[in-house]
Amino acid sequence: MINDGYLIVSGSRIEEVGKTPFAGDRSEFTATVNLKANVLLPGLVNTHGHAAMTLLRGYADDLPLSEWLEARIWPIEDLMTAEDIKWGTWLAIWEMIASGTTTFTDMYFHEDQVAQAVEDSGMRAVLSRGMIGFAPKGEQTAMESRDFVQRWNGAAGGRITTLLGPHAAYTCPPEYLREIVVPLAQELNVPLQIHLCETRYEVEQSIAQYGVTPVQHLVNCGVFAVPTLAAHCVHVSDHDIDLLKANGVRIAHNPQSNLKLGSGIAPLSKLRSAGLTIGLGTDGAASNNDLDMWEEIRLAATLHKGTAEDPVLVSACEALELGTAGGAQALFLEQGLGTLVPGAPADFIVVDYHKPYYYPRHDVTAHLVYSAKSADVIDVVVDGRQLMRNGEYLTLDVEQIVYETNRCASRLFGS
Amino acid sequence: MINDGYLIVSGSRIEEVGKTPFAGDRSEFTATVNLKANVLLPGLVNTHGHAAMTLLRGYADDLPLSEWLEARIWPIEDLMTAEDIKWGTWLAIWEMIASGTTTFTDMYFHEDQVAQAVEDSGMRAVLSRGMIGFAPKGEQTAMESRDFVQRWNGAAGGRITTLLGPHAAYTCPPEYLREIVVPLAQELNVPLQIHLCETRYEVEQSIAQYGVTPVQHLVNCGVFAVPTLAAHCVHVSDHDIDLLKANGVRIAHNPQSNLKLGSGIAPLSKLRSAGLTIGLGTDGAASNNDLDMWEEIRLAATLHKGTAEDPVLVSACEALELGTAGGAQALFLEQGLGTLVPGAPADFIVVDYHKPYYYPRHDVTAHLVYSAKSADVIDVVVDGRQLMRNGEYLTLDVEQIVYETNRCASRLFGS
Repeated sequence: MINDGYLIVSGSRIEEVGKTPFAGDRSEFTATVNLKANVLLPGLVNTHGHAAMTLLRGYADDLPLSEWLEARIWPIEDLMTAEDIKWGTWLAIWEMIASGTTTFTDMYFHEDQVAQAVEDSGMRAVLSRGMIGFAPKGEQTAMESRDFVQRWNGAAGGRITTLLGPHAAYTCPPEYLREIVVPLAQELNVPLQIHLCETRYEVEQSIAQYGVTPVQHLVNCGVFAVPTLAAHCVHVSDHDIDLLKANGVRIAHNPQSNLKLGSGIAPLSKLRSAGLTIGLGTDGAASNNDLDMWEEIRLAATLHKGTAEDPVLVSACEALELGTAGGAQALFLEQGLGTLVPGAPADFIVVDYHKPYYYPRHDVTAHLVYSAKSADVIDVVVDGRQLMRNGEYLTLDVEQIVYETNRCASRLFGS
Repeated sequence: MINDGYLIVSGSRIEEVGKTPFAGDRSEFTATVNLKANVLLPGLVNTHGHAAMTLLRGYADDLPLSEWLEARIWPIEDLMTAEDIKWGTWLAIWEMIASGTTTFTDMYFHEDQVAQAVEDSGMRAVLSRGMIGFAPKGEQTAMESRDFVQRWNGAAGGRITTLLGPHAAYTCPPEYLREIVVPLAQELNVPLQIHLCETRYEVEQSIAQYGVTPVQHLVNCGVFAVPTLAAHCVHVSDHDIDLLKANGVRIAHNPQSNLKLGSGIAPLSKLRSAGLTIGLGTDGAASNNDLDMWEEIRLAATLHKGTAEDPVLVSACEALELGTAGGAQALFLEQGLGTLVPGAPADFIVVDYHKPYYYPRHDVTAHLVYSAKSADVIDVVVDGRQLMRNGEYLTLDVEQIVYETNRCASRLFGS
C-alpha cells in the first residue's frame, strides 16, 4: 500500500515501487495518477460469484433456502438468454470497477457472454461454464465447458483464464465427476472450482447418500487430483480441513452470502491455521446482495473475532491480504498478482483518503479494513490500463447498462 | 419510504405525505427536494456511542480487550481536553450527517462541548455525561450530570434531550446506583443509559462479586425504577431477557462493535421475540471503527440469519425499522420520530438511487438494507432544516474539522 510514494508501470507490469515521493523526471511517463495524499493499493480479488445474477438482486430475500432456490431463482434462470447474461454481467462489472475489484471469477451459463464483457471492459477474470451432471445437462455442459476453455483460456492478452466449474457434489454424480470432469480438466490442463459444504443440509445429505462428508466424497471421486478451488466450506470438520490441506484445495470464503442465506459461518481461523490458501468472495448478487469486496474484507476481520470472542483473530492486515494476494493465489493466478511489487501485473486502485472516517491518520490498514467504503475508490487500473479515472468510467457505458438491464428485467420478471 | 411521491414539511414537522407525484402548487413552498427517482426515508437513529472517540479511530485495533482499554484507550482519554471533545464530536457529526444519521446518543465527558456541537450543527441528540461511581469521580460526575441535564434538557428547540449515563454496573458500585444515580434521575425526571452485559467476563465478574447476573444486579439495585436504555446485552440469559422485558428496559444493539472487540453476538431474535424495544448503534469509533448505521442495519439483517442458520430471521423491513423508528423509541423520543407520518418531526434523508447495486428495481427495502452505502446519502433534513443538500454540508466546515482534529491528534498522540 502506498500513500506517500510512487509506482511506475511499464506496459502491463509494475516496474518500480517507491516509498518516498518520486524524485525523477515525470515527463517520460505517459500516465500518472496523482495521489494527492490518497491511498494506492492492489486491486481487490473476488474469488466466488455468478456475475449475471445481478439481474436477480433483491428479487428473493428473507426466504427459506429451498423456496429461494426452487420457487424463485431456478425458474428465472431457466428463462435467462444470452442477452440477459451479457447485460447482467455488464451490470456486475460496473459495480465491481466502481468498488475497486479488478479480478473476479464466474461460474454460470452463456459464459461466452461473460468472457466477451471481460475482454471489452478491461477486467481480469477466471471463468467457468457451470457444469450440472444429471442427464441431459451433463453431456451438454461438459461439451460447452470444453469449447469455452479452448476458446477463452489465456484470451484478452492473458486477462482471461478458465476453469472447469462442476457445480457441486450434489448436482454432479460420482461417475460424472470421475469419468467426465476430472479427465476433461486433465486433458485441458485447467483447475476446477466447485461449491462445497455450503449448508448443513448438504453435509447431512452426503452422509445419508454416500456415508461420508462432501469433502471425503470428492476425495473418493478423485476430484482433487485436479487443482481445485472450493467455495464456501462452511460446514467442514477438522478431518475435512486436514483433507483439504493434504490435497492443496484452495478456499473461497464468502461471509456475507453465508450469513444472509442462513448457511452459517465458515471456520476461517481453523482454515487459516491449517495453512490453506484462502480468498474472499461475494457470491452472486441474489445472495449478498451486492458485489462489494470491502464488506467481505470487513466481515473477515470482524465476524470471526465475534464468534470466537477473541479480538486478536484475523487482523486488519490479514483480512486485506485475503482480499488481494490471497484471492489471486486462490484463483491460480501468477505469483505477485494482488501485491505491489516490481514485475507483478499492474492491477491497482486508488482510494480517496479524505472522508471523515479516515481521520485522524492513525493506521492506514485499519482505516481501510474497518472504515473504507466502496464509493471511495476513484481510480482503477488493470493490466496497466486505466478503467476508471477519478470516478469516471473509461470502458463502459453506464446509461446503456441501466437501459439494457431494465429491459432484460422487464422481460424476465414482467414488471 | 418514498420513491415516487412527495412530502410536505411545515416548520419542523411533516405535514403531508403523498404516495403519488405531487399535483398541487409548488410555489407556496420555500424548499423542495427533487427526488429525481431517488429514495426518501426517515433519518437513521444511532442508539449508542461516544462521539469524540473518533479521535481514537484506528489507534488501537486487533488487541486483547484489557490491553485495548487499559494500555491504549484510558491513558489517552485521561489527556483529552474540552477542545479535543469539541473537535472529536464535530468529526463524528460530519461522518453522521454524511451517512444519513439524524439522531445520535452520547455518553462521554466535557459533554457541554457535545451539546454545543449538536446545537450548532442542527443534529438531534440524546446526551449524557458518563458517570463513574468510584471516589472521587462519583460525586464529581453526578454533579456534572445534574448541571448538564439542567442546562441542556430540551435545548436547541427540543433537538437536545438528556439522560443520566451511569457507565456500567462494574464502574458504579451498588450504593452509588441506589443512592445517587436513581434519586438524581427521579429528581431530574430523565431516563438513564448504561452499558450492560457487553462481555462474558463482565457477567462472570458480577456473579463472582454479587452472586447474580448484571441484569439481576441492576434489578436489585433498583435501577430499573427509572426508564433505562441498556447498551449491548450480548451475554443475557433467558431469565435476564424476562427481567429486561418486565422492567421495560430498552436495548441498543451494536453488532459491529461487539464483533470487532470480540465481545460476541447479542441474541437479537430472542430480544425481539420478547417484545423489547430495540434500536441499533455503532458504539464509539475506537471499536467499530466508523459511525456507519447502514453497516449496523445490514449486520442486523444478516448476522442473526447466519448464526441461527435461518434465512427468514430479521427481514430487511425489520432491520430498517430497528435503524429508524425502533431507535427513536429506544432513545425515549416522541412517537412518530423515525417514520414519515404527518405530525412527526421532519427528520429525513434522500438516497441517490442510481448506483449499480440498486438495479434492477425489484425491492427498494431490500436494496437499501442489503446494498446501500453510506456515501449514497445526498440530502439530510433534521427538524425541518436541511443539513446536507446534494452532498454539500450547510452547517459544518469540513476543512476546519480536518485541521482541528489533526491538531488535537498531534497533541494527544505526539504524531
